[in-house]
Amino acid sequence: MKSSQVVRTQLSKTIHERFGVEFGVPDELPHVQELMRILEHRSHRRYAERAVDEALLRLLFACALSAPSKSDLQQADIVWVADPARRQRIADLIPEMPWVREAPVFLVFCGNGRRLPQISAMREKSFANDHLDAFFNATVDAAIVMTTFIRAAAIVGLGCCPISVIRDHAEAVSALIELPERVFPVAGMCVGYPAQTEQISPRLSPAVTVHIDRYDETDLELEIDRYDRRRHGQQPYAKQRDVERHGSAAFYGWSEDKARQYARPQRVNFGRYVRAQGFKLD
Amino acid sequence: MKSSQVVRTQLSKTIHERFGVEFGVPDELPHVQELMRILEHRSHRRYAERAVDEALLRLLFACALSAPSKSDLQQADIVWVADPARRQRIADLIPEMPWVREAPVFLVFCGNGRRLPQISAMREKSFANDHLDAFFNATVDAAIVMTTFIRAAAIVGLGCCPISVIRDHAEAVSALIELPERVFPVAGMCVGYPAQTEQISPRLSPAVTVHIDRYDETDLELEIDRYDRRRHGQQPYAKQRDVERHGSAAFYGWSEDKARQYARPQRVNFGRYVRAQGFKLD
Repeated sequence: MKSSQVVRTQLSKTIHERFGVEFGVPDELPHVQELMRILEHRSHRRYAERAVDEALLRLLFACALSAPSKSDLQQADIVWVADPARRQRIADLIPEMPWVREAPVFLVFCGNGRRLPQISAMREKSFANDHLDAFFNATVDAAIVMTTFIRAAAIVGLGCCPISVIRDHAEAVSALIELPERVFPVAGMCVGYPAQTEQISPRLSPAVTVHIDRYDETDLELEIDRYDRRRHGQQPYAKQRDVERHGSAAFYGWSEDKARQYARPQRVNFGRYVRAQGFKLD
Repeated sequence: MKSSQVVRTQLSKTIHERFGVEFGVPDELPHVQELMRILEHRSHRRYAERAVDEALLRLLFACALSAPSKSDLQQADIVWVADPARRQRIADLIPEMPWVREAPVFLVFCGNGRRLPQISAMREKSFANDHLDAFFNATVDAAIVMTTFIRAAAIVGLGCCPISVIRDHAEAVSALIELPERVFPVAGMCVGYPAQTEQISPRLSPAVTVHIDRYDETDLELEIDRYDRRRHGQQPYAKQRDVERHGSAAFYGWSEDKARQYARPQRVNFGRYVRAQGFKLD
């Protein structure tokens, strides 16, 4: 299965655009177009005026729920917010993201730490695992299902945008979609046919995020500076964040933007919400 | 792009094997073989005697790290445990899973809540988000990257088995791969060319895990009973768990197995480990 030179060149180019590095692409690479689809991942926030067929959506749910699950526990649920009134009330919570209102489909991916204790009760066993790992496992399962949904959607030409900001309104969203105790939103998801081609988000070099044998951050500052510059060359920020607080930076890169973003408290009530949903986090 | 009837029939069959339901498959379905690859997902614990090319592995890392990332924060890291001695010490912690020792490649996917405060310090900003959501975001990012790795690996014919049990030994594993404060293992990962075709794990019906507009558990007990029976027909458990404690069940299904599994405390120290790694979970 020798890949054509054209495709291998395209793949190298995409990796360079994403990571700023040169990669040796193996000579023999099966299904290279499928890998390209993963490498070219981008989020989509603008959608064509084209409905998503319900049968297709249900097929994508099946794909998502075919994902691996920690100890086969299946602690992820998908809520499809189809009712326009409910959807509008969620969108009203997040006016800064009009795509929540506009996307043809809106979903909420949930972690489910509820079913397992229910099963324990059904089978008259004690549930001896009411601690952080229970919450953690459900969170990871939901993220796995969500990611698999995004991959499946991309295959059929749909674009997605995960909405983690729904956790800023975790209580309100939970009430709107009637989540019971021990079920919690991990992220919302806008889905639709893309209206336009989006840019690829540059990523940190694998020198930062891939480690051999031991975690290594020797060149962290250097690599972050490099990434800031590279990213600025490809996708400069249109405006600076919180200028009234931090002033205007001569060079405004990713790290400056993220440092500013997290200098403001975000989602400080999430822990309280999770505990109120019935989780112990010991 | 009309899909052939053969492929659509195969897809319906796989969905039925997985979920026990009949699905209308849309007439026009692009790249249906790619969807099949997701629907047919299975874990692989037995590997052929065939090494995984390093260039291929690095390409799969690039695929994985092209996944979406919460607020573009990129809070996931991959540790490739290439050194046989280090690998053996991890395998020795988990003797019940010989594939940890045997797999051609062993990785650890980590959540990274460290880089963001480091960036805040680099850019002389305060870090105002030392609470549960910080840990949560890093966990989700790691799960997203891990899932994307699994998908990319499947495309090139590699099989994976996530190893969450490394969190039973979170401190020891962290010491072995030298994880600093605020970096934590989400799961290990065995990777190799499959030695055999594995069965598909049946999953709960979408009647349980997919909800329209509101969480609905009306038929939960009925659906779990149905799932137990269906699964038993496809993949009966070879032996019962903890018979000395719970006796021998006349019918031993998934829910009985899971209820028994979680009647024993597991990973009760994970919360303590996470806090010792420097996370506040308020």
